[in-house]
Amino acid sequence: MLKTNHYFDGDVVSIAFQTETLPATVGVMAIGEYTFDTSQRETMTVVSGALTVQLPGNETWETFRQGDQFIVEANQIFNLKVEVETAYLCTYQ
Amino acid sequence: MLKTNHYFDGDVVSIAFQTETLPATVGVMAIGEYTFDTSQRETMTVVSGALTVQLPGNETWETFRQGDQFIVEANQIFNLKVEVETAYLCTYQ
Repeated sequence: MLKTNHYFDGDVVSIAFQTETLPATVGVMAIGEYTFDTSQRETMTVVSGALTVQLPGNETWETFRQGDQFIVEANQIFNLKVEVETAYLCTYQ
Repeated sequence: MLKTNHYFDGDVVSIAFQTETLPATVGVMAIGEYTFDTSQRETMTVVSGALTVQLPGNETWETFRQGDQFIVEANQIFNLKVEVETAYLCTYQ
């Protein structure tokens, strides 16, 4: 039985699973702007669409597209803008 | 508000969304064996893990791994074996 999590009134939904090596989620973000905090080191891969991200401590925003990856260390806050519904894979370390 | 669908008693869960061009789902399959039928042409991409697939009309099974893609035409039945929890992206045409 796989577990889903709903955030931001259901505008971000994820499904938790276990890769061969790491806990992971795959999810979708609706169009919008979001602030997330991390409890573990997160490696985010864009599966479809694009995420425009302000990484912790950065003033600038960077856009990650299908196949691109970025890392956020544990206990950080980061901001995201989503202009097209976007699917992502996140692994936790 | 994103919509989730649960199949096989929650062993397959997907989230529906819209890419820039096509309707899509991203989902996870728990370890198990499944038979699916298609109502539209489906392009399946393995996001994490592996899917061992018996495509319609085939006697043989083929394993698709992270980044691999296969297509199933509309109104077909196909069989899947999943040996590690696997995330996939499916687009519909």
